[in-house]
Amino acid sequence: MSQHALPAHEIAAKVKAGEITAVAVAQAALADIGSQNPALNCFTTILADRALKDARAVDAKVKAGQDPGPLAGVPFGVKDLYDVEDVVTLAGSKILADNPPQPADGLPVARLKAAGAVLLGCCNMDEFAYGFSTENMHYGATRNPRDPARITGGSSGGSAAAVGAGMVALSMGSDTNGSIRVPASFCGIFGLKPTYGRLPRTGSFPFVPDLDHIGPFARSTADLALAYDVLQGFDASDAACVDRPVEPASAGLRNGIAGLKAGVLDGWFESGASDDALDAVARVAQALGPTRKVTLEHADVARSAAFCITCSTGSALHLERLKARPQDFDFATRDRFYAGALLPAMVLVRAQRFRRRFLEQALKLFGEVDVLLAPATPNVAPFIGQKMMMLNGVEVSARANIGLYTQPISFIGLPVVTVPLWTKDGLPIGVQIIAPPWAEAMALQVAAFLEQQGIVSAKGPGA
Amino acid sequence: MSQHALPAHEIAAKVKAGEITAVAVAQAALADIGSQNPALNCFTTILADRALKDARAVDAKVKAGQDPGPLAGVPFGVKDLYDVEDVVTLAGSKILADNPPQPADGLPVARLKAAGAVLLGCCNMDEFAYGFSTENMHYGATRNPRDPARITGGSSGGSAAAVGAGMVALSMGSDTNGSIRVPASFCGIFGLKPTYGRLPRTGSFPFVPDLDHIGPFARSTADLALAYDVLQGFDASDAACVDRPVEPASAGLRNGIAGLKAGVLDGWFESGASDDALDAVARVAQALGPTRKVTLEHADVARSAAFCITCSTGSALHLERLKARPQDFDFATRDRFYAGALLPAMVLVRAQRFRRRFLEQALKLFGEVDVLLAPATPNVAPFIGQKMMMLNGVEVSARANIGLYTQPISFIGLPVVTVPLWTKDGLPIGVQIIAPPWAEAMALQVAAFLEQQGIVSAKGPGA
Repeated sequence: MSQHALPAHEIAAKVKAGEITAVAVAQAALADIGSQNPALNCFTTILADRALKDARAVDAKVKAGQDPGPLAGVPFGVKDLYDVEDVVTLAGSKILADNPPQPADGLPVARLKAAGAVLLGCCNMDEFAYGFSTENMHYGATRNPRDPARITGGSSGGSAAAVGAGMVALSMGSDTNGSIRVPASFCGIFGLKPTYGRLPRTGSFPFVPDLDHIGPFARSTADLALAYDVLQGFDASDAACVDRPVEPASAGLRNGIAGLKAGVLDGWFESGASDDALDAVARVAQALGPTRKVTLEHADVARSAAFCITCSTGSALHLERLKARPQDFDFATRDRFYAGALLPAMVLVRAQRFRRRFLEQALKLFGEVDVLLAPATPNVAPFIGQKMMMLNGVEVSARANIGLYTQPISFIGLPVVTVPLWTKDGLPIGVQIIAPPWAEAMALQVAAFLEQQGIVSAKGPGA
Repeated sequence: MSQHALPAHEIAAKVKAGEITAVAVAQAALADIGSQNPALNCFTTILADRALKDARAVDAKVKAGQDPGPLAGVPFGVKDLYDVEDVVTLAGSKILADNPPQPADGLPVARLKAAGAVLLGCCNMDEFAYGFSTENMHYGATRNPRDPARITGGSSGGSAAAVGAGMVALSMGSDTNGSIRVPASFCGIFGLKPTYGRLPRTGSFPFVPDLDHIGPFARSTADLALAYDVLQGFDASDAACVDRPVEPASAGLRNGIAGLKAGVLDGWFESGASDDALDAVARVAQALGPTRKVTLEHADVARSAAFCITCSTGSALHLERLKARPQDFDFATRDRFYAGALLPAMVLVRAQRFRRRFLEQALKLFGEVDVLLAPATPNVAPFIGQKMMMLNGVEVSARANIGLYTQPISFIGLPVVTVPLWTKDGLPIGVQIIAPPWAEAMALQVAAFLEQQGIVSAKGPGA
């Protein structure tokens, strides 16, 4: 195994111990990107020179006997909506490509770099984060590393595929309606969508401030927790960021789950799911055994409300661009923004009001169980260019329906770890481990337990 | 002077000392209501029997040597949108009159009663709190106690007029865009609109939850502070209520204002103001002097944004009623709800986004000055039935423009005490003492100082 494909915590340990150099890891990762990226199209920007420079700085620290940080030498990528010094923040858009490059790294990138991680490049996404497929009209489709004929899911598809393909150990995505959980499911990796308000979004391009979350991808819970810990810490520049103490999750990851009560969401969260998805949830539930079924009522309304908040808020954000350069939008994205611009305000008011009631209902469920389980996606990844998919025996738009189990959960900001399972055909599919607000550490513990039990793994059957 | 017309704190002191009885005070107040209300139309519901029963309970406590509370025997009224046991919460509407009576007092009423205050009745208002005139289509116009040919302002007109006319010592209003400050200005009394999130609105009929505040009216700052102190205290049932410690204002009312820096808002807050309004602000500024002019830019945008949030949120609240019983709405109110229902959602999104920027600007101003001064209304009370008024030499709708100086301030939830001054024609006009968030106590101290100096008074020139 090439050094860059080791787990992040192992890379960091070896770099710190002087067993390998950050430069060698970065070189290996760059070579891998050079070899795999032309086919997979994960990266829109590769920062070779800067990565080597940053890696040299990490090695210099090690040589000088200084602490290089918990992610020393760990190669990572970020979704195209994170601000990176001297790079134009594209957010998957052709229009934003005309903007000047960023004068400095945004906060999440700066925090990861300060922990010793080495940024290798920026990753493809759906335009303005509005989609579940990463078939970007301007920058091309990203292909699934497990089956290049399939999509990666989106909108953080490039980031998820880069980790899934082993090019980087960590990457950053963002999740408004499922944009971390969907590509984690399709690419067979771990993804964390933290509690709304936990990780400051400072220095990332917004989509729907009321629903936007940032979060990491990794190939193990240990690495996911490591990245999450580095990303934590209040920042007042993000108006939604809640001033809470940092609650590190890495240390307690192997505390076990004795006495844990898990509930399997039924109703909406089973309806339309493929046998693959239901089987994955059943395997997780069995490992957490004895579980019960629980109901989160009106999940369909929650999803509709999330749709309405998304398209109207998105249209408000992009209005000037929609007026000035409509032909430079992805047509499918643009049409949804147009629909959002026509939505009456009172629909938005009612959607927000419903949000509070739906959250109260979920909090009541957490009085009965510790975590909720649901599929991350209704099926394995569709094929590139596939417009339709089957749901409950009915052919529906693939793009619009992939997030049907993720939307109601991000709508109320609950933290979720998506864990990877594998179908009998060797394709990945994810399960959502949903925790109460601020209980990321518990969701990560559950994921770590499942990993120890061999129930979930990013390796896949062929590995 | 009849006992019921004494200041609230004097009534409470005398009741507590056994010098007067709460029953005698209630009887005097009821007699006064019986005599004045037919002409002024402040009360839609008079609770004579219950008031006497509650007064007897206060007197019994005094006799038994128990503490009857800081508002012992103080007669008060509440705006028609407060829940009162066995009374239908009308909110000025004909449609809500079909609702069942409330099973219990709402929290603000319960808190005032627990402090020994005696509820005498419920007060007229604009339909659904949507207006600045209290010319209610269903329940009639409330007339200004200082000049019955004039309006009281609204939407809390009945409550303000009842205090201005001396029928009750205290009353409760609510303020979404100016509905406490406008009638306080027109009726020549003190009014407090606290910081957004300070006083729980539990048990009051909503209008625009993002902008709604409750607050008291009184004829002195001492009484205003007394009522405010009793109303304080976190309540989780109001999702907007902020969990802060109670910060009593009564005790520090006479601490003085040494070193206070006051700023007079210019630009928008002077434009269109009558000489009466400008003169009132100048007299307050001189008493607080030396003051400087300060600018809160884009107040016009703030007002438009408040309008948009109001009509769209209001339409969402009343949609079913608008569909089912359009003919039973006040026509002017209904048409604004219709307009709100047609407003695009992205306007609401942008209005909310602007709110944050506007608040940040105001907070910066509070780095330079301690309080901001502005007129409460552009002129003295218009006449009943008067549709138009002059603003900057242009004839504009009276009803739509009375709140032009109050709307931008409630839009960002700043606490305001409205203090009463008097024109050379002997008519009242109010000035807003605007403080930073959570600094109600300071605004009240400034008002108390102005009162001590004889600059502001609820007595008026004829008294």
